[in-house]
Amino acid sequence: MIAAQYKEMLGAKSVIRTLSEKAAARAKVIGYENVFDYSLGNPSVPAPQGFTDTLLSLLRNKDPMELHGYSPTLGIHSVKEKIAASLRARFGIPYGPEHIFPTSAAAAALAHALRAVTVFGDEVLTFAPFFPEYHPYVDLTGAVLRVAPADTKSFQIDFGAAQKMIGEKTAAVLINTPNNPSGAVYSEQTLQKLAALLEKKSREYGHAIYLISDEPYREIVFDHQEQPYVSKYYADTLVCYSFSKSLSLPGERIGYLAVNPACTEAETIVNMCGQISRGIGHNCPSSLMQLAMAESLEMTVDFSIYEKNRNLLYDCLKETGLEVVKPGGTFYIFPKAPEEDAAAFCEKALDYDLVLVPGDSFGCPGYFRMAYCMDTEKVERSLPVLRKFMRETYGK
Amino acid sequence: MIAAQYKEMLGAKSVIRTLSEKAAARAKVIGYENVFDYSLGNPSVPAPQGFTDTLLSLLRNKDPMELHGYSPTLGIHSVKEKIAASLRARFGIPYGPEHIFPTSAAAAALAHALRAVTVFGDEVLTFAPFFPEYHPYVDLTGAVLRVAPADTKSFQIDFGAAQKMIGEKTAAVLINTPNNPSGAVYSEQTLQKLAALLEKKSREYGHAIYLISDEPYREIVFDHQEQPYVSKYYADTLVCYSFSKSLSLPGERIGYLAVNPACTEAETIVNMCGQISRGIGHNCPSSLMQLAMAESLEMTVDFSIYEKNRNLLYDCLKETGLEVVKPGGTFYIFPKAPEEDAAAFCEKALDYDLVLVPGDSFGCPGYFRMAYCMDTEKVERSLPVLRKFMRETYGK
Repeated sequence: MIAAQYKEMLGAKSVIRTLSEKAAARAKVIGYENVFDYSLGNPSVPAPQGFTDTLLSLLRNKDPMELHGYSPTLGIHSVKEKIAASLRARFGIPYGPEHIFPTSAAAAALAHALRAVTVFGDEVLTFAPFFPEYHPYVDLTGAVLRVAPADTKSFQIDFGAAQKMIGEKTAAVLINTPNNPSGAVYSEQTLQKLAALLEKKSREYGHAIYLISDEPYREIVFDHQEQPYVSKYYADTLVCYSFSKSLSLPGERIGYLAVNPACTEAETIVNMCGQISRGIGHNCPSSLMQLAMAESLEMTVDFSIYEKNRNLLYDCLKETGLEVVKPGGTFYIFPKAPEEDAAAFCEKALDYDLVLVPGDSFGCPGYFRMAYCMDTEKVERSLPVLRKFMRETYGK
Repeated sequence: MIAAQYKEMLGAKSVIRTLSEKAAARAKVIGYENVFDYSLGNPSVPAPQGFTDTLLSLLRNKDPMELHGYSPTLGIHSVKEKIAASLRARFGIPYGPEHIFPTSAAAAALAHALRAVTVFGDEVLTFAPFFPEYHPYVDLTGAVLRVAPADTKSFQIDFGAAQKMIGEKTAAVLINTPNNPSGAVYSEQTLQKLAALLEKKSREYGHAIYLISDEPYREIVFDHQEQPYVSKYYADTLVCYSFSKSLSLPGERIGYLAVNPACTEAETIVNMCGQISRGIGHNCPSSLMQLAMAESLEMTVDFSIYEKNRNLLYDCLKETGLEVVKPGGTFYIFPKAPEEDAAAFCEKALDYDLVLVPGDSFGCPGYFRMAYCMDTEKVERSLPVLRKFMRETYGK
């Protein structure tokens, strides 16, 4: 029986994809360099040469039987040890290899985390604005994603709303900081308040409410700041990490799940991931990539381009009078549209070859996202166009 | 809420794993070279140098942005084109890239195929002896695995049993040829009879019964024979392929799903796989591995060692008077134990440092599996031990 559940999903075309297609069609006419495509969150800085060198060295020097052999169900032990040691050193949490589960990037880490701590009908709460893929990620496990409205003043958390939405059925809260699409970096104060709320609600409902922390942008923080490490504030935290952005390896599908050692049933959760894997056909990420990643834990690409782009765009958007929160990290910015209907706004921007994404699918109507992972030269060329669009269309 | 479903699975220790642990403990005492560990189906021949060279060349010459960039949801188009062209040329079926979905090896191909063509409560029929992981693979989708008893004369299909077990709820039939654990290669006649049965039953129940063909051993066939290509015999066939065995890359998790172009809703099924991926966190195999695999489609490791090992073992087992079907391929052999309780037999063999796996978990009690993916030298050293065990224990 063809599974109607998935077949029906084919009808719903993603807004971002539709925009990309329009951008691609326009690029054929005027050249891609003249389409200011701010729609896609694809890293624009190449992977570090050091990472390539590590791969080359592994291929030249390691026995192919070891290099390409089966991973144990729970990941290559030496890899898990190195990840744990790196996290211990950086964040002071006593992770051991038994708390680490290598995954095919953050998507697979989330797939395991969600299955480990929810059952059919449970609720998972997230905060707008949020990555739209959280809907299939959560909803296809049998749990239900609920979305608390955004705190649009700072894109931290609207605790008034959050408090009301956590109930008996809330099994987990899913956060993403630094945040796609807002670029907000949750502050220490936000994380402390969130921890206090979850502790209170866990007691109230007599079961642990897990915090699933999706951290692919953890390293991309500007102004010499750092993302406070989420797991430090709340014991029942499952960190989902990916090297897609920090090492510009989105195609390699490499990351991990790190369960706080103080988490309720921490080691059981990791062991359960081995069982969940059997059901979803995961069976560990590429062994070559696991081994290369373990040698590259303190490496990142150069994020200065993203910071420079953020500065250019933020200043320009402010100048044109748009309401915008300055992103603390990522490669996204999420301004308020100058008219209520952000989709209409983005449609008008297309006439100027500016590809912007309306905030509706991020749970934040009236806002729009710009992904500025592109060459600075192109961002610079887009600024006069952005100004012209705002002037001619909105008199700003 | 910790998911009891997965937590409870932790209690059930696999027989193979328990045996491996015993073998490892014994190896610490007498050295691994003296433990005749026939328990694990791990390729023992290294990946071809040509594959390593392809990886090295990609890393040296390709732009890292392209090499490590996001795959499209349905896989890298050029990779899909090359797989389709290779299958067209080899098997004469008009695959196009739209029928190919690159996956993290056969496990992920099966995870997608099963979700695409079954819904909750549907039945999937397989034939004993079968790979025990089919239980979690199928059961964790919400469908139910049913197992038809073995045709122990030839390890082809017991069509009498099969016929009775296909009913209204049968959404798919899952086969594995060449077969783990029997080493049997389904003949053209078997595949023709299976196709006729499925066509008849599909008509009878008014819905397509899909054939999911798990083919990681497709290339490992001995005596200059070939595995008849399953998809040629039945239109509604989904092929799950892996390079784990043919290129000795089990850790790299690389393979594909190939949907017969004549299959009911063929392209829809492939597109649905993109949606299924979102729910299970798959998001394509490693981009580097996809690109390297596409350059290595006509490459395999040297299987002659497996064939040599098969010959040595088969002759020895016959000599000791055991009932055994000669495997046509793979690196497994599946003799009948000389006592009814194969687990007791395998326990006794352990005293001789022979690690054999009882057939019970393969759905075939009274038989045992030997995985002869090991150095021929070691197989040779094991033969007198095997003879001694049989003589001293069973007077053979």
